[in-house]
Amino acid sequence: MKTKVAVILSGCGVYDGAEIHESVLTLLALARADTQVCCIAPDITQRHVIDHASGNELEDEDRNVMSEAARISRGEILPLDNVRAADFDAFIYIGGFGVAKNLSSYAFDGRDYDVDPAVLDLIQAAHEAGKAQGFMCIAPILAARALGGKQVQLTIGNDPETAAALNDKGAKAIDCPVDSIVIDEANRVVSTPAYMLAESILEAESGINQLVEAVLKLC
Amino acid sequence: MKTKVAVILSGCGVYDGAEIHESVLTLLALARADTQVCCIAPDITQRHVIDHASGNELEDEDRNVMSEAARISRGEILPLDNVRAADFDAFIYIGGFGVAKNLSSYAFDGRDYDVDPAVLDLIQAAHEAGKAQGFMCIAPILAARALGGKQVQLTIGNDPETAAALNDKGAKAIDCPVDSIVIDEANRVVSTPAYMLAESILEAESGINQLVEAVLKLC
Repeated sequence: MKTKVAVILSGCGVYDGAEIHESVLTLLALARADTQVCCIAPDITQRHVIDHASGNELEDEDRNVMSEAARISRGEILPLDNVRAADFDAFIYIGGFGVAKNLSSYAFDGRDYDVDPAVLDLIQAAHEAGKAQGFMCIAPILAARALGGKQVQLTIGNDPETAAALNDKGAKAIDCPVDSIVIDEANRVVSTPAYMLAESILEAESGINQLVEAVLKLC
Repeated sequence: MKTKVAVILSGCGVYDGAEIHESVLTLLALARADTQVCCIAPDITQRHVIDHASGNELEDEDRNVMSEAARISRGEILPLDNVRAADFDAFIYIGGFGVAKNLSSYAFDGRDYDVDPAVLDLIQAAHEAGKAQGFMCIAPILAARALGGKQVQLTIGNDPETAAALNDKGAKAIDCPVDSIVIDEANRVVSTPAYMLAESILEAESGINQLVEAVLKLC
């Protein structure tokens, strides 16, 4: 039996969705580890659509988070509402502004952010079921909100503002370089800075490969 | 001086743009080889927008090929019209239906297809300047139209219909497995089937890594 891993995406593109390099590097590392992978995204409307060439918001456009995320998974995607913690051995949350805009309100509310209720439920249910969970880049803000009461240890690199937001939720933010990971064995949670710090795809790859390996070891 | 490589994208997403895994695997291989990479796309409107979750065409949407491609390159992208063959040592064309819809008319016209004039000019100018060029997945249809008069040797895997279209243009289509490449040394052109045949990201990676290595050797 292969290990079953859910990869949670928040769209397609760093400025309004899931970071594409992080997504593909994760799928690559999971394929190398011979796991059975399923991509998942919420079937909701994106909060923003950003023209990635100009950086401008495209105010007249509406895009669906799940439909855009399916670009990364070549069409195969499950709506997050249909996913139960029991369906998978591990869950990995990819970064990108989609996490801060579509899966939570962090981009708009800062320290007062909240997390999409379905995402919150899934993280908490997976935790209660003892599943391994990985969070990269800005995605640890989701874990901080969901598992702050468990004093979960997380890294978002070394950004003091985001670290303070994590600590506000009861989590313990730990500084970490781009080529490393933070493992909270008690909570079965692994995190890595990825493009919170990475200045190249190689830098992102190093931490992501370690995160995938550590998550699979916790299964 | 690092080798300068242009990566030509046709949008963002397998069904209406550049194939995302192929794009990121290429950027990863080029980063490992310590090259200087620039992503390039035409500043034109996409012919189709496909909902990648349902497979349906979104008829009311207009998207710009370059703006969507910039999702893959994290914002940094050059308009293809501004690019000269002399600016780079090598050119790599990523696959995906964007090649058949946005860079050429192959998806609509089959064997009677033509190629976007700016793309045609760039491939021919690069050939005349002796630059190395790589084409993966369906992208060899571009090289067949541009360099058919040079009897360029190309692979698109083993699809007889597409092979016939290449041969119609004067090219020589060569069957090739997913984990291999075809090198036309005289024309300085390398091709690999990638997702024309790949059934997993690992299968795609194998041929793409070889293509990148062979293209850089031809520089």
